[in-house]
Amino acid sequence: MDCIFCKIVEGTIPSKKVLENEHVVAFHDIQPAAPVHILIIPKKHFAGMNDAQDSDWPLIGEIHRAAQQIAKEQGVAETGYRLVNNCGKDAGQVVFHLHYHLLAGEKLGGLNAK
Amino acid sequence: MDCIFCKIVEGTIPSKKVLENEHVVAFHDIQPAAPVHILIIPKKHFAGMNDAQDSDWPLIGEIHRAAQQIAKEQGVAETGYRLVNNCGKDAGQVVFHLHYHLLAGEKLGGLNAK
Repeated sequence: MDCIFCKIVEGTIPSKKVLENEHVVAFHDIQPAAPVHILIIPKKHFAGMNDAQDSDWPLIGEIHRAAQQIAKEQGVAETGYRLVNNCGKDAGQVVFHLHYHLLAGEKLGGLNAK
Repeated sequence: MDCIFCKIVEGTIPSKKVLENEHVVAFHDIQPAAPVHILIIPKKHFAGMNDAQDSDWPLIGEIHRAAQQIAKEQGVAETGYRLVNNCGKDAGQVVFHLHYHLLAGEKLGGLNAK
């Protein structure tokens, strides 16, 4: 499958990984929008939230378990962080392998600032 | 407990609910930041993502199951939507009962625009 995030999971495209376990991989975004900007993805490929099946909801939970752990490890758990999932065009989704952004390290912008 | 979202769960504070099930309640944000702006909260109180325990990850999955359903019902599943969880001060969390924002209905702003 010609998916850049699947290739990061496989290791055929390099990434600055911060966490990997049975379910997920997390790595630094190459175009950070905040001092801390990490992408958290499931190893399993699905395009986005619309494509999650009943059996995938525990995996979404695992992504958030990883997010909580990463926030602690990056030293931003107490200062704060934002988790964002973009699904589809209006949200600006670019890579069609489900992913969450973890943004932190400064006072973040508004929910829908332009 | 003096928590506004617990009171919405209980029904002692009114809200424009769009979904309620065993696990979650979802309702329109009273200060919408987008044409569609819905808050999805667990019925169980916990302050934010840092406070999620091992037993809570399936519940986080349930919140997303609800989000997927709401996006369909609101007619924004195909045009796109953004799910946001703010944890703590730098993210601008205001109500300390874990909640997700579902934003949709227009081309949304950048991930960290100000």
